[in-house]
Amino acid sequence: MSLRQMKFWGWGYVDDVVDAAEVDAVVAHITGRLGVKGLAPAQAPREDDIELAVPRVEAPEALQKNCSSAPYDRIVHTYGKSFLDYARTLQRDFSSAPDIVAYPTAEQEIIDLLDWASRANVAVIPFGAGSSVVGGIEPVVGDSYDGAMTIDLRRLDRVLEVDKQSRAARIQAGIFGPALESALKPHGLTLRHFPQSFEYSSLGGWIATRSGGHFATLYTHIDDFVESLRVVSPAGALESRRLPGSGAGPSPDRMFIGSEGILGIITEAWMRLQDRPKFRAGTAVHFTDFYDAARAVRAISQAGLYPSNCRLVDATEAANTGAGDGNSHILVLAFESADHPVEPWMARALECANDHGGSVPDPTGEVGHREGAAGRWRQAFTRAPHYREAVIARGIIQDTFETAITWDRFEGFHATMMETAGDAVRRVTGKAGLISCRFTHTYPDGPAPYFTFHGLSSVDAMAAQWREIKQAVSEALLANGGTITHHHAVGRDHRPWYDRQRPQLFAASLGAAKRALDPQGLLNPGVLVDP
Amino acid sequence: MSLRQMKFWGWGYVDDVVDAAEVDAVVAHITGRLGVKGLAPAQAPREDDIELAVPRVEAPEALQKNCSSAPYDRIVHTYGKSFLDYARTLQRDFSSAPDIVAYPTAEQEIIDLLDWASRANVAVIPFGAGSSVVGGIEPVVGDSYDGAMTIDLRRLDRVLEVDKQSRAARIQAGIFGPALESALKPHGLTLRHFPQSFEYSSLGGWIATRSGGHFATLYTHIDDFVESLRVVSPAGALESRRLPGSGAGPSPDRMFIGSEGILGIITEAWMRLQDRPKFRAGTAVHFTDFYDAARAVRAISQAGLYPSNCRLVDATEAANTGAGDGNSHILVLAFESADHPVEPWMARALECANDHGGSVPDPTGEVGHREGAAGRWRQAFTRAPHYREAVIARGIIQDTFETAITWDRFEGFHATMMETAGDAVRRVTGKAGLISCRFTHTYPDGPAPYFTFHGLSSVDAMAAQWREIKQAVSEALLANGGTITHHHAVGRDHRPWYDRQRPQLFAASLGAAKRALDPQGLLNPGVLVDP
Repeated sequence: MSLRQMKFWGWGYVDDVVDAAEVDAVVAHITGRLGVKGLAPAQAPREDDIELAVPRVEAPEALQKNCSSAPYDRIVHTYGKSFLDYARTLQRDFSSAPDIVAYPTAEQEIIDLLDWASRANVAVIPFGAGSSVVGGIEPVVGDSYDGAMTIDLRRLDRVLEVDKQSRAARIQAGIFGPALESALKPHGLTLRHFPQSFEYSSLGGWIATRSGGHFATLYTHIDDFVESLRVVSPAGALESRRLPGSGAGPSPDRMFIGSEGILGIITEAWMRLQDRPKFRAGTAVHFTDFYDAARAVRAISQAGLYPSNCRLVDATEAANTGAGDGNSHILVLAFESADHPVEPWMARALECANDHGGSVPDPTGEVGHREGAAGRWRQAFTRAPHYREAVIARGIIQDTFETAITWDRFEGFHATMMETAGDAVRRVTGKAGLISCRFTHTYPDGPAPYFTFHGLSSVDAMAAQWREIKQAVSEALLANGGTITHHHAVGRDHRPWYDRQRPQLFAASLGAAKRALDPQGLLNPGVLVDP
Repeated sequence: MSLRQMKFWGWGYVDDVVDAAEVDAVVAHITGRLGVKGLAPAQAPREDDIELAVPRVEAPEALQKNCSSAPYDRIVHTYGKSFLDYARTLQRDFSSAPDIVAYPTAEQEIIDLLDWASRANVAVIPFGAGSSVVGGIEPVVGDSYDGAMTIDLRRLDRVLEVDKQSRAARIQAGIFGPALESALKPHGLTLRHFPQSFEYSSLGGWIATRSGGHFATLYTHIDDFVESLRVVSPAGALESRRLPGSGAGPSPDRMFIGSEGILGIITEAWMRLQDRPKFRAGTAVHFTDFYDAARAVRAISQAGLYPSNCRLVDATEAANTGAGDGNSHILVLAFESADHPVEPWMARALECANDHGGSVPDPTGEVGHREGAAGRWRQAFTRAPHYREAVIARGIIQDTFETAITWDRFEGFHATMMETAGDAVRRVTGKAGLISCRFTHTYPDGPAPYFTFHGLSSVDAMAAQWREIKQAVSEALLANGGTITHHHAVGRDHRPWYDRQRPQLFAASLGAAKRALDPQGLLNPGVLVDP
């Protein structure tokens, strides 16, 4: 097969070379802040280190052409890219590896695979790029199945049709971000959806997990870009009608958006596109008080200006990512448009920031979105996933949790979460950690705060320690009115809190809808609802 | 009871006095365009004219306090406000009247009513204001029930809580538009949702039908304003968590938004609000070619300017509503903001209009949104429902159908729909009718065209003739890629086409979800899916 090989240990492709100096600087900063130095990384796991159980099932002959049970394929499809996945990879624990990995090249093959799985009682895990950070693609399916098959969609990777007038395209679900944007670029169009995992995540994955792009306001969630969907489930295929808007009953698309593979496999979608931006303005505003800064964000969010970036980064996080020196909180503010200069928009946003105590830069010194503090932040944002393996291999717990909360509760909520996370890291690891916060998205009715924590552990202890910390912060999220996830999805890791967050009768309805589409409960068992 | 009495014949309240001269001018214009004059209206139906069947069931004693089987209550809850409803009202046909009308004052009473209905096998019709134009609240439930009860929610009419920081309020579902806005006004806030039925429709009705407000772009659909919901179903009550955003599985709210009363009765919602606008700019641009005008709308929609109004009104409709003289197509264009002057936005939109051949008014002569062609159109928009009874009582078929279509197909689609409607009116009534079109909403990927048709019929023949016309235009909508409804909902009238439009497996899932919430299929039978 001609697919570019993915790493099973760490982020991205096997041939992704990350500059050692770049990694060393990040490691030095984090270990410095944690008060240690000279930590050696654990040995990187190699394929030969890993023992796999004998596959329980074998694909039937007619389907074998695009199936594999080779160790590499099984290993690389065992985990996503969560902290826990990394920790277990370092332990060489691949007990949940799938028995078979299928790489279908056409929708009919998916139908055939599902037919076979139904007959053979084999659980099916849809797989986009494998960058889930919530255990969304781990084939840990329990004993009621005779095996587990991962369906990797990377060979469904084409833009099939472009409608320039409506600015929309029909796109196969397995395409990754860079290939998608390359295919749209000659048309002057962009999906303009850039999650942090952009390089290494797929259209189908974005839709299945309600992905959030890196833009802070308005059109950033994949939900809003879906014009119609094609989905294959064990009960058959379905396609929604391509429409700019409709009030004909509850939206069929919205049932599948966020369904995390439990209702069907998304095979293609008509996606709403945008013209490529031509006009940009970007700057960074500094604040001495974090809650003043949050109030500025609230004012900007409620003003109807729709900045492309409105990311508040606290002083700790600014220092960790190189965006600042750690002495002030930074509001990264940007506007962009394909149609018109955005200066009036920026001018008004800066007035709002100034009203709340922000140090607004001299307008003559304003810089573009690729330079200055804003540019440094952006660079760190896209590179961050490449550094995690080096940090974690040194026995450092590094993870994030993200949520959303209404403005009326924000300040108390933020203080509680910072304290809860700090206490948990200290209690569990025995040492003070690093806790920081940024806003990834802002809405008129509240922000989406995103917390990062670092704690000094060891390669052997860190999985168990992480579970304790995760438990503490998740309980606090729920108890204080947040959501267990704003854009990372539920997967298997968030199930206990999701089960308490979502209305029980909604779970009953979703479970009933699932049984109509997947009567045997083959699809991604353990995620969202019990089959 | 202290509820203001609603008309069963015509629009609004019994004590709504519509100025005779205002009505006469509308009737004279329409009859003039249809080439007739001096048509006398049929006698308005009175309560005494109407024969009702004996109620099949009686509410149990504990619930009777807030229930009625009096003729007026049963008559006023038989129909909505569709053309067909008016035609049948003129025929004194009230064979589908509910047996009981309940006016609960608290959620617990709804729970008790549903418990009783489950035991008594009585169908339940949730009722907001009764302004459905698609047969959404008609208790035509078939023989498998022992009776039908309408639950009128008008006594759940309070704003319970206002959160100024997050700009949100907890509001009971039975409140009507004007009362809702009055309650929010002292806080400087507005829901800013103004469907044409605003005076005479309820929050719960808006949510259940995916209502579209009169703003043309961005935040106009009720879907986007729902922060969380409370719903009572026969299986129990559920409440979604109040969050500005969440990626935790498919959205529970989106399952109930548009569910048209089949999954449960919405009792209250936290709604996202906005500051009241302070800055406005409005104007009207004239075009000689309708498709040039449509291209201007497309350019404006795709520019990221988000006008509050961007309503293209064709020459016929402009003349019918008094917005124009019938010699040009009019683009009613407006911007508004609570935060900043909107001149840069308007200036760029006018450039787009000019690029596509629009006659842009002299900027020094620009007028506000309450004056000029824009103001006249706005006035006609809000008053239009008050004129229908006078037109229809003269044997004139007057109705609308609305849809959405992507831009790539728009021109051919529009031409086909205008021709289909014109042909159908001529064929069925034997005389040329009036067909006109406006855009109610515009999206970057396509417009929502709204067609109005008038045909000369007679009070006796018009129901049957309307059915033939409706059949012809609905078939054409579906065959040419539109949606059977953009914001009027499905109800009972659109079922045949909705059934073909929505993916069959989605119907299976929705039906399964319904059975989880309403196992006996008591709620609004006949709407969306078969129980």
